[in-house]
Amino acid sequence: MVSLADLPLREELRSEKAYGAPQLVVPVRLNTNENPYPPSFALIEELAHEIAQSAGELNRYPDRDCVQLRQALAEYVSQQTGVSVTQDNVWAANGSNEVLQQLLQAFGGPGRKALGFDPSYSMHPILSKSTQTEFVSLPRDPNFDIDIDAAVAGIQEHAPSVVFVTSPNNPTGGVTPLADIERIIEATPGIVIVDEAYAEFSNSPSACELLAKYPSKLVVSRTMSKAFDFAGGRLGYFVADPAFVEAVMLVRLPYHLSTLSQVAAIVALRHSKDTLATVAAIVDERKRVQKALEDLGFLVVESESNFLFFGTFADQHGAWEKFLDQGVLIRDVGVAGYLRATIGVPEENDAFLAAAAVVAADVIGTGVEG
Amino acid sequence: MVSLADLPLREELRSEKAYGAPQLVVPVRLNTNENPYPPSFALIEELAHEIAQSAGELNRYPDRDCVQLRQALAEYVSQQTGVSVTQDNVWAANGSNEVLQQLLQAFGGPGRKALGFDPSYSMHPILSKSTQTEFVSLPRDPNFDIDIDAAVAGIQEHAPSVVFVTSPNNPTGGVTPLADIERIIEATPGIVIVDEAYAEFSNSPSACELLAKYPSKLVVSRTMSKAFDFAGGRLGYFVADPAFVEAVMLVRLPYHLSTLSQVAAIVALRHSKDTLATVAAIVDERKRVQKALEDLGFLVVESESNFLFFGTFADQHGAWEKFLDQGVLIRDVGVAGYLRATIGVPEENDAFLAAAAVVAADVIGTGVEG
Repeated sequence: MVSLADLPLREELRSEKAYGAPQLVVPVRLNTNENPYPPSFALIEELAHEIAQSAGELNRYPDRDCVQLRQALAEYVSQQTGVSVTQDNVWAANGSNEVLQQLLQAFGGPGRKALGFDPSYSMHPILSKSTQTEFVSLPRDPNFDIDIDAAVAGIQEHAPSVVFVTSPNNPTGGVTPLADIERIIEATPGIVIVDEAYAEFSNSPSACELLAKYPSKLVVSRTMSKAFDFAGGRLGYFVADPAFVEAVMLVRLPYHLSTLSQVAAIVALRHSKDTLATVAAIVDERKRVQKALEDLGFLVVESESNFLFFGTFADQHGAWEKFLDQGVLIRDVGVAGYLRATIGVPEENDAFLAAAAVVAADVIGTGVEG
Repeated sequence: MVSLADLPLREELRSEKAYGAPQLVVPVRLNTNENPYPPSFALIEELAHEIAQSAGELNRYPDRDCVQLRQALAEYVSQQTGVSVTQDNVWAANGSNEVLQQLLQAFGGPGRKALGFDPSYSMHPILSKSTQTEFVSLPRDPNFDIDIDAAVAGIQEHAPSVVFVTSPNNPTGGVTPLADIERIIEATPGIVIVDEAYAEFSNSPSACELLAKYPSKLVVSRTMSKAFDFAGGRLGYFVADPAFVEAVMLVRLPYHLSTLSQVAAIVALRHSKDTLATVAAIVDERKRVQKALEDLGFLVVESESNFLFFGTFADQHGAWEKFLDQGVLIRDVGVAGYLRATIGVPEENDAFLAAAAVVAADVIGTGVEG
């Protein structure tokens, strides 16, 4: 056995740590923004049936272009956003991380820059780095919104090849209005990726509405890991002009999506109506939890997602540990003063709020901010 | 709609075409080196059952470190190679392409070189390019073996960070002896990846036997896409010192392997004895087909895999089309004078040989070489 230091690793990786939230076994897991409601029995039954049907061909490579799945996704997107798209507009991969990595391979890379508005999804800078794309971070305003004039100025200064706008934003929950996204697109010399991982939890219009106007500059990325109850299935996708699909086909790994992934995602999409019925319940719970946190004296950022960003803490990591001590796993994303909690089922939210009451008492005792 | 040329794509991609063998619907598909025997009913039944069991948690992210799967792979590798390894030595991803991409991200990249011996697996240069690693190609000798003195000299000249040795080699079928692999490892300043995608079809020892001697330099990559009947499941892995697992964890996409992939691969590994019983039948068929091709006047390269590389053709692409006209899809990998045919079930091989007889008559009529 040797140690990592003995390997001829790339220099810039030597100081790195592996990305990922702690996967701890605790009673209440509210740290990775999953939908807390399990898939329906009807979905599970159909899934087992369809897997058995297709398994006789598992010795064969899958459909490399995932045509049936992209058709099913296009139907869903058309219905969910009100913007009519076809399979030619849709591309799918193993989670939106792989979708974003492919886009960065095609449009970022050495000598090119990506730009984002912090705090936001922490994988954007990591994926940029791993594709050798320089990442430029512009700060959000004190409410965690994008200051659009500063954004336009920053884009003009850095001339990025790729701009990320996460809307609703993770970890803060707010939405960037389409008018602001248009200003960002118009300022950007490269492409703009609007990351809509949490779109189903928001009533705001999808950036898909802008695709017809900006066909060569806009990509909307989405995922089945959140509202769709399918984090374990790893299915992300993007919606864009068909030319973007052609572009990622130049860099995608051949047969990147297994037969199992394609079959299972199609089944999940067939049950989308049932699954997404949970979204309204989650949004109601989000409102209840927000109110309760505010009553406890916390500051809570307005959210159109399935999580809340709240504070403020003099020591947010210490507070995170106090939640964990009570069996409640939430997320410290490294933003000073704030923590992020996923909305769970009512019992989980009650447990979270009970823990929050204890933390609030503690924190107020030792000097709460804000 | 816009065209690909309208997008701000990376310059080096502008002239590229998407990689991949044609996916055509023809009676006899012998072009992608799959195991032609479908999974057993027992496997399919257990798979459907296990998927149904785990699907209740599909709303949750999968085990990010794939511990159970890596345990199952370690047991299989220990048994198949005779080299005892544990889960700490094994890493898995969506096909060996993703495994190799991760290794190139960690050990290749801008300013670094990868080196291979052509003709070989065509994804090695493509993956190098997509990770911004310069690819150096050294020619194999006229029998498609590695000329080991020339290899050592070439490695000393180019000082590559990553060297690929495919054994058995794709598309040619031959094995590189472990003594030669040792000389390559000793000459290489970086790491050596021995790609053993076709190992189960060969009686030669696995390069895993060298892992203890070269812990900081050797990685053995493998796949469940070939002998294992699981091309549709997309599961590749590597075996190496645990430090290599730590290294790829710095670049892997979090939750890269779905719950479905992990569950299905574990089931497939549980049935490995049944599945691999087909290997002997395939090897017997390979010998029969080789003899028949030679009787038709073809030159056939010695193979320890599940395919044959044969020729010679004045126009191998024209010959490929003649096979296709007869409903037999084989592979033109772009090596002048040769085509590659996967060994199928006996009826498929008979169809292939009947087509080969027609092609031989044609080719002999118009000037066969060699």
